[in-house]
Amino acid sequence: MHYQRIALIGMGLVASSMSQAIRRHDKGVEIAGFTRSAETREKAERLGLADRMFDSPGEAAADADLVVLCTPVCSFEGLAREIVPRLKPGATLSDVGSVKAHVARIVGPLMSDGVHFIPAHPLAGTENSGPEAGFAELFDNRWCILTPDQEVKAEALARLTGFWESLGANVEVMDPARHDTVLAVTSHAPHLIAYTMVGVADHLRRITKSEVIKYSAAGFRDFTRIAASDPVMWRDVFLTNKDATIEILGRFTEELFALQRAIRSGDGEMLQQYFERTRAIRQGIVEAGQDTGESDFGRRPRGEN
Amino acid sequence: MHYQRIALIGMGLVASSMSQAIRRHDKGVEIAGFTRSAETREKAERLGLADRMFDSPGEAAADADLVVLCTPVCSFEGLAREIVPRLKPGATLSDVGSVKAHVARIVGPLMSDGVHFIPAHPLAGTENSGPEAGFAELFDNRWCILTPDQEVKAEALARLTGFWESLGANVEVMDPARHDTVLAVTSHAPHLIAYTMVGVADHLRRITKSEVIKYSAAGFRDFTRIAASDPVMWRDVFLTNKDATIEILGRFTEELFALQRAIRSGDGEMLQQYFERTRAIRQGIVEAGQDTGESDFGRRPRGEN
Repeated sequence: MHYQRIALIGMGLVASSMSQAIRRHDKGVEIAGFTRSAETREKAERLGLADRMFDSPGEAAADADLVVLCTPVCSFEGLAREIVPRLKPGATLSDVGSVKAHVARIVGPLMSDGVHFIPAHPLAGTENSGPEAGFAELFDNRWCILTPDQEVKAEALARLTGFWESLGANVEVMDPARHDTVLAVTSHAPHLIAYTMVGVADHLRRITKSEVIKYSAAGFRDFTRIAASDPVMWRDVFLTNKDATIEILGRFTEELFALQRAIRSGDGEMLQQYFERTRAIRQGIVEAGQDTGESDFGRRPRGEN
Repeated sequence: MHYQRIALIGMGLVASSMSQAIRRHDKGVEIAGFTRSAETREKAERLGLADRMFDSPGEAAADADLVVLCTPVCSFEGLAREIVPRLKPGATLSDVGSVKAHVARIVGPLMSDGVHFIPAHPLAGTENSGPEAGFAELFDNRWCILTPDQEVKAEALARLTGFWESLGANVEVMDPARHDTVLAVTSHAPHLIAYTMVGVADHLRRITKSEVIKYSAAGFRDFTRIAASDPVMWRDVFLTNKDATIEILGRFTEELFALQRAIRSGDGEMLQQYFERTRAIRQGIVEAGQDTGESDFGRRPRGEN
């Protein structure tokens, strides 16, 4: 393995999956763990996700070659203040947060000499949360984006790259601001939109909640899956990637109004042309191996699960 | 089987699945088929979806006990004008359109005495189109909503109910206007929103299409699946369920602006509470058997398909 001792700070879906993927690759790595929640700690211990669970992030991080923040983004500043003074020389501090410019801005200035700081974002996850939701294959064939600053040591970057590759991911290096813009389009704005649509259904008085659930057709049903993602994690994403998200939502609203006007005026040609263009993007995603082309995600019609 | 001779008008995903589900239940039923497209006809013949393909909808419908319109909704008026005069006494005309008040308004007045008209909407489909996308299990454990008017004969209604149950569906009777409102929430508005978000990504000049495809994370990836649905079918849905769709989109925009304001002002508490509420609806849908609770729809991380 690329690191001999790894500290995972936070024990949710991503840390749990990292632990399992690390051991799939190399059983000899020593994994230190920390989580503030007693319930999560108990589950992580039962699942054996760490060789040892610690009582503070600083203790977990001491002696680690790699420390990875796997908690919601707004907790990073406090964690980094506890962890950085304990890092051993040559160690790397990284994270798995869904926003990157904020992380560089907040954590970067706290770093000290002789240790490395390389923010990272594996584009992988599910709507389920917690240590029990993790699995070793989560990162297989998914992208992990690293957003180091200019002064990063090439050796440290190569080491973290090799680490993520050993977990099954494909690694790319990107500027943090660009990362945040791309992800605002491909993830952050879609999540907010899905949350909103599910909220609308929840609030409508004319339709009962049981009707919404009973007749949830394709479309809404998929929105509910997205809107079932971890509330604290997503709160922090929107609070820390505010500008890019709001910009994309502005573009979205403009576009929605144009389509709404086409519906109101009965402009079938405009609608059909629009819907034909969007088909092509889907084809590209399936061809790029980022989703299954199987109908309806291959949902089985009976006896789910 | 509840009908001895069934005519399917249109040979896309739904008609193809109906044909296969009919034969799964009873190999002795005679199926008549019609489609305007030479290419679709050739595929339907190769797949053996009908015992005989006809050159006009009227010829296909003559002698049938049940005629089902399986084409985009805006084609129904022209088809009904050709079909109704050819219906034999006691025959039932039905459809599988995603909007129902419009169908009652347009097709209802064209009906003649001695035949039955019972609009229907099976809540089942996938993002793929055409005869080759069909499969016998499409309707298993899905809802089929019937929206007959007050004067429908109980016997005709019971017969169509039994037919859909034999195809695997659960049947409900509903008022057409209520159907259109419920579906505007659970299907039509979510589809328009997904089309819009995918369109925004397509139009953004600052991000290349290949970046969107490459980094399509959960969220956007699911939107692209929804936005890959049949363009003509969806054009017709929006043109014929205009008022309910626009009303729901209005509610959606209000709500989106409220969340956007919370992001801008940094109101993390509001965001988190909102996201926690939407989780509950998801749980209800999984418990109601309308979706799989498997993480990420059980997408396999490697070697899709």
